[in-house]
Formats: sequence, structure tokens, C-alpha cells
Amino acid sequence: MSKELSVAIVGATGMVGRELIRLLLQRRFPVKAFRLLASSRSVGKKLQVGDQEIEVQDTNNNSFAGADIAFFGATPEISQNLVPAAAKAGAVVIDDSPVWRMEPDVPLVVPEVNAADLEQHGGVIAIPNSSTTPIVLALWPVHQVNPIKRIIVDTYQPVSATGARAVGELTEQARAVLDGKNVTPHVYPHQIAFNLLPEIDVFMDNGYTKEEWKIVQETRKIMHEPDLLVSATCVRVPVFVGHSAALHVELSHPMPADEIRDILREAPGITVQDEPSISLYPQPWTAAGRDDIFVGRLRQDVSHPNGFAMWLVSDNLRKGAALNSIQIAEELIARNLI
Amino acid sequence: MSKELSVAIVGATGMVGRELIRLLLQRRFPVKAFRLLASSRSVGKKLQVGDQEIEVQDTNNNSFAGADIAFFGATPEISQNLVPAAAKAGAVVIDDSPVWRMEPDVPLVVPEVNAADLEQHGGVIAIPNSSTTPIVLALWPVHQVNPIKRIIVDTYQPVSATGARAVGELTEQARAVLDGKNVTPHVYPHQIAFNLLPEIDVFMDNGYTKEEWKIVQETRKIMHEPDLLVSATCVRVPVFVGHSAALHVELSHPMPADEIRDILREAPGITVQDEPSISLYPQPWTAAGRDDIFVGRLRQDVSHPNGFAMWLVSDNLRKGAALNSIQIAEELIARNLI
Repeated sequence: MSKELSVAIVGATGMVGRELIRLLLQRRFPVKAFRLLASSRSVGKKLQVGDQEIEVQDTNNNSFAGADIAFFGATPEISQNLVPAAAKAGAVVIDDSPVWRMEPDVPLVVPEVNAADLEQHGGVIAIPNSSTTPIVLALWPVHQVNPIKRIIVDTYQPVSATGARAVGELTEQARAVLDGKNVTPHVYPHQIAFNLLPEIDVFMDNGYTKEEWKIVQETRKIMHEPDLLVSATCVRVPVFVGHSAALHVELSHPMPADEIRDILREAPGITVQDEPSISLYPQPWTAAGRDDIFVGRLRQDVSHPNGFAMWLVSDNLRKGAALNSIQIAEELIARNLI
Repeated sequence: MSKELSVAIVGATGMVGRELIRLLLQRRFPVKAFRLLASSRSVGKKLQVGDQEIEVQDTNNNSFAGADIAFFGATPEISQNLVPAAAKAGAVVIDDSPVWRMEPDVPLVVPEVNAADLEQHGGVIAIPNSSTTPIVLALWPVHQVNPIKRIIVDTYQPVSATGARAVGELTEQARAVLDGKNVTPHVYPHQIAFNLLPEIDVFMDNGYTKEEWKIVQETRKIMHEPDLLVSATCVRVPVFVGHSAALHVELSHPMPADEIRDILREAPGITVQDEPSISLYPQPWTAAGRDDIFVGRLRQDVSHPNGFAMWLVSDNLRKGAALNSIQIAEELIARNLI
């Protein structure tokens, strides 16, 4: 990795943006220069990046001249409006928004699964939704030896996946409830403290939410299985960081849980935490700040001859967002695609 | 209901016991006299029951003489040790513990589903686990017109289902986390505040927890479907009251979600909350203190031709425990079985 790159980060002051900066430094990504971009509200703000202080600049069509790579970690609107400008300016875009994911010429990539799709990139690469990434990462190694027919997943999603304001909302509401005070929701339609909301993103005509539909469609695209059967119910839970999911999977033929566990132990990016006798299983509180995704509660599903069940937790800001984006950039360098 | 009954409540000072007292009064259950029983620790304590103050007595083999009915809402150990004594003393026992549920001669009853099983009672009646009751109650009316083949359920279970100490633990831990302090778990093996624990009850050799296995076995027994395919993952969430579950159900033949919604609207004990356009769906915070169970997010499951998906919430202390017990007692009176 001798080549150094000029790196633009869109949404630099947000939760994903800050994680991107932290991880680029930690992983010694070959950065020639950082360009920190955010909304006009944050312009002039200074962020500490290693031993430098860097001033945040406005994000517009002219923000990307000279950038080799642009990480988008802002809102869908910003990705919608500015990804084309960034790509036109010659930056390879790695976008963490739903806007471009399903475009046929935009690779949607989890490097451990489909890095080869990067070979076809045309300047814009998308990363999956933070709820999809750990699912495909955990299931891909099993799918290689025993093709998956159907996936049912119910999620337990944290407020940090919504953003910093939602983290503040959970904090304030929790304090209010503990003090016996009333709560007025702002970010979510209802109270989230000590409550559950089965609504993430907008509802579609078929009764699914877009969040649930992302899991269906993105899983199919990343795994190159356009007819894979997938269903999901997505639920917001009063957790700060760490995306969790209960999975019920149907394989092509029966497979003992031990064998699946062994496959996952050998797989990249996955840590198996599965020792019920000592209450060892994945938890969002302990997965936060970690790069790997965590799997446990692996067992044969008694409701299907070829079924297995599993519990899955990952840091939604890391592998769910910033880490996956950076791994894609590293892969682009390794494959000479940038 | 002219006959008045002498009512013993075992575990009267616990969360279920207090709910039993509250609901017996509220529903004007024909009580001749209350006998409040608890562990020796609570003996002599006085509880307000309507306009009377009643002293708590110790629970032992001699506690049940003269009682017509005994509600057990204490620990499995107490049910194990004292249910036979209560039955021998002539009280009809309604037990909220896992101990007697699967005994062939003990009816396991949700009145809206299998009240007729009470006809065979031999002095001991069990109520299901609070995670099973809403599932069978919600699915039974559908099963009548379109037999269910398979149920996959992932739960989101509150701390009050563990008891008052767990409610205290969540409260204290949440405060500590908000104040930036460390947390030491006592009731649960790990922190529950802002965290999730996929461990409820003990682990079995097949990798399921006993809580999950209760859903499998109890659902089959109540629905009289010994071969019904059922799988569950049970997860403790940082919620005080209100038991939630995501269900994926396979029917015998395809059925539009609208038709299922109409069936459930007509069914006893069920309120349909299903207006996505105004963010109306069941939530534990709003289900707490309510008698009905709440269903919503009803939709055809895209992963199965005969499938539907649903979100379900109920007050675990009401229909999940105290209310169901009292409804059984009311049914015994109506059927002249006591």
C-alpha cells in the first residue's frame, strides 16, 4: 500500500463519520490528506484527526476536486444529490446510504462475501444497510457448503443506527422515565426508552417496512441469489450500540450445529461466542467497539429438518458501516482498482 | 355467580400476587375471604385489599384448610412442594409455574382457546408461561379456519416476568449507565440495562433454553396439536412490563392478511392495532396495564406461499399470569366445576 490517497468524508461530524476517521487512522489507511465535509451547520468546526486539527467544509458539487476516494456517511438526500458529483470529479465513492444500493451497475459489497464484485465498479460502490451486513457475513460461509433456501430474521436494532440525535433521545427519555416524568418523543414516533418500536424506516404497501425490505433485497444481491426466500421483522430496541438478530435458516440438507459452528469459527470477520454453560453468547453491550461480528445460540431448528437457529450481534457503526466501507477501500487498493 | 369462595393467594407479596389481588377486586370475583400467603420473610406484613388490611401468613402444608381455590404465583419450588397439599386440602389449584404444566392429568388452559379442558380437571390446573399465552390466544382463531403448520417466534421479554428484584436491577443499572458508572449484575448473568440477553431460564442439551422449549411444548398441548412445528428464540430486553414477539406462521393454504386481520378483530381477548400510516402498532409501554393482547404488523410473509408475519404484545402480568388465572377461576364457576 505505497500509494497515498486523498480522502473525503461526507458526514464527517456524524456518528459514522467519526467512526470512519477513527478507523482510518487505526488501520493506518494510506491517507495523503483528509477532507472533512458536512452540512453548512458544521462548517468551520474543527475535528481532531490524529495530531492534526482539520476544519470542516461545506458539502457541495465542488467539494470533491482532487479527492481519490469519498466515503459518504450522511443522509440519503445528500447521497442522492452529491454522489454523482463526487464520482464525476474522479473520486471513487463508497456510499453508506440506501440510494444507490440496488442500481444494477453499483456493486453492493461485503468484502468477505463478494469482493470480486468490485472488479466491475464504475465509480460508485454501496455498502449494505447495517442490519444486512452481519446476516450475509455470517451465512455466506455456510451457504458455500450447504446452500441456504430460506432465511427468517427478527432484529433488535439500536438507536445509534438512527444517529446521534436518537442516542440523545434514548438518554433523555430513560432519565425522565426513571425520574417518573413524562416523555415527549422527537426522533421516533413514540417513546423508545424501556419500550420497543416495530417500525424502522417507512412502511410499504405490502406491510413490510423499507428496513425489512432492505434485508430481503440486499441479501439476495450480495449473495447473488435473486430468488432466495427471506423475511424479516425489524424492531427498534432501547440499546445504544450493537445490532442484534435472531435467525432461523433452512439449508438444502440437514447439518449438525457443531458442523456449522466449526465453519463459522474458520470464517473471516466472525467470532463464535457459544458456551451456554457459562452464559457466553453475543450481547450488544460487549460487541460495541469491536470489529468482528459475534454469533452464538447455534442449534438445530426443531421446526425444520434442514433448519438451524442462531443469534447474531455486531457493532452497527463498525462492520455495519464505517469498517465495511474502509475494508472495501482496502480491497480496491489491493486489487489495483483505485 | 352467587357462590362466594375462600381464596388463597400464594406469593401474595410478589408482582403476580399483587396483580391477582387487584384484578380479583376489579373483576368483582366472588371472594368470601382472602388468605394471603407468602414466604416467612413477609409474614406479618399487612396488605391493603380493597378497604381491608390483611396480614400475610406463612405458606406451608397447613395453609390451605378451608380454601376453595388457591392461586399459586410464587416460585417453581413452592409450587413443587405445596400444590399437592393445597389440592389435598380440597382447594382447586390454579398454578402459574412450569412444574405441573406438562402433566397429562393437569389441564393447561387459556380459556379463550381450551376452556373445555377444564372439565377433566383433577384439582390442579396450570396456566401457560407468559410467553406462550399470547401466542396461542392470537393464533387459535386463525387455526380454526386455516390449520397452522409451523410457528417461528422470536421474543422480546421484560424484566417484570422475572420478578420485582429484576425490575429493581434494571432501574438501578439504567441509572448507573446514564451516570457513567459501572454495573454489577445480580439477578441476570450480565447487565440488562441498554443490553439484550438471549438467555431465559436454563439451557438444555439441544441448545434451546427451557423458556423456548416451554413455547414449543405448551403451544402443542393447549392447541391439542402434538406434532405442530414450533421454534423460538427468547431474548430478555430492557423493558419493564409487556411481553413482545415477532411471529412467522405457515398455514395450510394461502390467506390474505386482511382476512387474518378480520378474524382477529372478531376474536375475544385480542385488540388489533395495525395502522402503519399513523404508526399504530403494539408497544409494550402502551400494552402495560391492559387486559387484551395486542396484534399488529400483520402481513403476508414473502418467504412462504402460505405464510404470514405478525407482531404481538401483551401485559405479562395480566393475560400472561394473573388475568389468565382469574379467567380460569371464572370459567370453573360458570361451568360448575368448583
